[in-house]
Amino acid sequence: MASPKYLTGDQSAINDFIDQFDVFLFDCDGVLWSGDHIFPGTVETLELLRSKGKKVVFVTNNSTKSRTEYQKKLTTLGIPSNVDEIFGSAYSSAIYISRILKLPAPKNKVFVLGESGIETELKTEGVEFIGGTDPAYRRDITPEDYKGIADGSLLDDDVGVVLAGLDFHINYLKLCHAYHYLRRGAVFLATNTDSTLPSNHTFFPGAGSISIPLINMIGKEPTALGKPNQAMMDSIEGKFQFDRKKTCMVGDRLNTDIKFGIEGKLGGTLAVLTGVSKKEEWEAENAPVVPAYYVDKLSDLRG
Amino acid sequence: MASPKYLTGDQSAINDFIDQFDVFLFDCDGVLWSGDHIFPGTVETLELLRSKGKKVVFVTNNSTKSRTEYQKKLTTLGIPSNVDEIFGSAYSSAIYISRILKLPAPKNKVFVLGESGIETELKTEGVEFIGGTDPAYRRDITPEDYKGIADGSLLDDDVGVVLAGLDFHINYLKLCHAYHYLRRGAVFLATNTDSTLPSNHTFFPGAGSISIPLINMIGKEPTALGKPNQAMMDSIEGKFQFDRKKTCMVGDRLNTDIKFGIEGKLGGTLAVLTGVSKKEEWEAENAPVVPAYYVDKLSDLRG
Repeated sequence: MASPKYLTGDQSAINDFIDQFDVFLFDCDGVLWSGDHIFPGTVETLELLRSKGKKVVFVTNNSTKSRTEYQKKLTTLGIPSNVDEIFGSAYSSAIYISRILKLPAPKNKVFVLGESGIETELKTEGVEFIGGTDPAYRRDITPEDYKGIADGSLLDDDVGVVLAGLDFHINYLKLCHAYHYLRRGAVFLATNTDSTLPSNHTFFPGAGSISIPLINMIGKEPTALGKPNQAMMDSIEGKFQFDRKKTCMVGDRLNTDIKFGIEGKLGGTLAVLTGVSKKEEWEAENAPVVPAYYVDKLSDLRG
Repeated sequence: MASPKYLTGDQSAINDFIDQFDVFLFDCDGVLWSGDHIFPGTVETLELLRSKGKKVVFVTNNSTKSRTEYQKKLTTLGIPSNVDEIFGSAYSSAIYISRILKLPAPKNKVFVLGESGIETELKTEGVEFIGGTDPAYRRDITPEDYKGIADGSLLDDDVGVVLAGLDFHINYLKLCHAYHYLRRGAVFLATNTDSTLPSNHTFFPGAGSISIPLINMIGKEPTALGKPNQAMMDSIEGKFQFDRKKTCMVGDRLNTDIKFGIEGKLGGTLAVLTGVSKKEEWEAENAPVVPAYYVDKLSDLRG
């Protein structure tokens, strides 16, 4: 595979790069900011692209926030945006369940492992769910729970889907419920399967830490709706009808962001070095994922 | 590999089988009882073996109970025993940490994911620990936790081991602590890695469900101290000085119990069909684990 083109400091190459595309899909954490700290020049770079008539879309695997909540985060950091420009894995999951999976009622209820962001997006799509942030599940397991889960009397016969996202309130009781719904044949979905979540300049358990005990117990992988899964690309395309050849994915993780762009057959991929992946990764022999372009940091596009 | 010899109903074969061995290692759940229901004939079969001068040892991967607590369970079910006949994975883990791993003080503290059984056994061996059933860890994560875990101010510099057992109170905060101790180089141990736990005639999440998010995050397997790991066999042998050739492992799970006996080069292995594994598993072509003997149920040994 060819080496990526290094754009930092090369104004003519930067201009050629920008001119090729109509749409830029941005991963957020590690590209625009880190945790709660916006990178210098982020706002100006987005402004530059918009001033050239480019469409900007924010694509995040963060499933704990709804699009509206995510927009608030962008606003707090000083990044202008509107809700329609935001695609999160909670939204992508809701779209998948309501418009693609389309299980026949009444056995189409979703058992949620996750936070309110998932619930908000499911509600927007009119999808019924249980679990999630319901306080009834935020407690220790009891002997009555074991019995009622085992004989099914405490399970909802209408649950047809288990959706696992990042749940800061994960516990044994919720894992028991999710596992038994899967044993009874529920469709297994995950908002995303990132093992870790970047925060406070380090990492914490990610959504993949919630689904992996279930994978280990039932011996089956979920359909993951976040990057690099193309269900997310399809859902973005369904909304914007963009020309993939004139679209560029910008991200810091080779195995999610850049892979997402390559497998989506986008016109380009741009890696930035302000996040997880280092350039040694794509310079390695037989590197599985190589971006088309890279810069040290996003604001290098300002020249 | 040769087929196992079927003993049920064949008195002369049963006598020859029993006469070969001095020691019988018993898995418990699925062999002697199921959940809280003892199988008919269990007490009489153990009595028969003892009357013939055989040593009986109870070997369980259950890490939530200490040996003393486990003995109480045996007593409740009507099975005579003494504490020295009981080997659990919590005890095996404590022995491994104190007598084999022997990390130099003060950096030899253990961060525990698990219940009181593990704590009791660590105390017996004089091993210092934090985590476990401490109510300070049974709560939601806060912004201060993220910060203090990230900068290390909330972590104990003396933790040199993370021990993951079955924790009915698992939560995000505990996973964060365990993950960060592992990132800082702590030795990764698991009492056992069974993905599920039999209960109420079905299955619930097992100790493997607690360690697997950590495995997924750090990309490293723990040393597991339960069956089939031979650290457990070594610890039993260390205590009893038995002759392996005159010892038989009795169990219902091929990939833990029977594998444990075969890899421990015991004189024999006996499978019972009252638990997890079915005889179709060892009758399959290229079956990885085949017992030497099998009976329909343990009490068939009474003839």
